[in-house]
Amino acid sequence: MLSNAEDDSIYKALGHYRRRQILDMLKNNPQTTGALCAAMPDLDRCTVMQHLKVLEDADLIIARRQGRERWNHLNPLPIREIHDRWISQYAVPAVDLLARLKRNLE
Amino acid sequence: MLSNAEDDSIYKALGHYRRRQILDMLKNNPQTTGALCAAMPDLDRCTVMQHLKVLEDADLIIARRQGRERWNHLNPLPIREIHDRWISQYAVPAVDLLARLKRNLE
Repeated sequence: MLSNAEDDSIYKALGHYRRRQILDMLKNNPQTTGALCAAMPDLDRCTVMQHLKVLEDADLIIARRQGRERWNHLNPLPIREIHDRWISQYAVPAVDLLARLKRNLE
Repeated sequence: MLSNAEDDSIYKALGHYRRRQILDMLKNNPQTTGALCAAMPDLDRCTVMQHLKVLEDADLIIARRQGRERWNHLNPLPIREIHDRWISQYAVPAVDLLARLKRNLE
C-alpha cells in the first residue's frame, strides 16, 4: 500500500498528456532519452528531461545508463497497483468482458 | 480510445486522495450519498457532493436514484482502460507475478 504522498506523485505524473504520450512510447520497448526527444520535436530537450524526471520520481519509469545513453523503461507495477486497488480479483473476468465489448462497439 | 480532455478528467478526479478514498469505499459495494457523508464526518455534505460530481464527470462513478436515495456505483471500466493502455496483454502474466511477489515481500 502506498502512502498518500507517493500515491499523489503517480496521479500528478499521469495528469499531463505529454507524460502519458511518453509512457505510450515506452509501452513495447525501452527508448533512449535521445530517441524520445527526437519523437517530440516540438518540445525542447530540457522540457522532455523534466517530464522524464517527474515520471521517474513517480516510479513510472526506470532509467538505466549504458555507455553514453540513458535507456528509459516503463515500470508497469504502479499501473498494475491502480488496477488492483479498485478492481477486485473476483471482478476481473466480468470487467475483462465489458472492456472487450466496449472496444468492439467502438 | 479517449480524447485528451476526457482522459484528463480521469487523472484530475483520481488526483485527490479524498476521491480515491471514496472509490475505495465503493470497491465492494455501492453506497448511498448519505452513507458516504457519514463515513467522512470531517467533511461537510457539500464538499462530499462536489467530490462525487468530479468522479461522476470522469465516469468513475455511476449514480442511480432509488426513491429518495442516490446510490453511487464504482465504474471499473476507466480504471481497466488505464491498465490496458500501458500493460500489453502479453505482459499481463509477468506483471501479475511481480505484483504478487511485491505484495508478499511487503
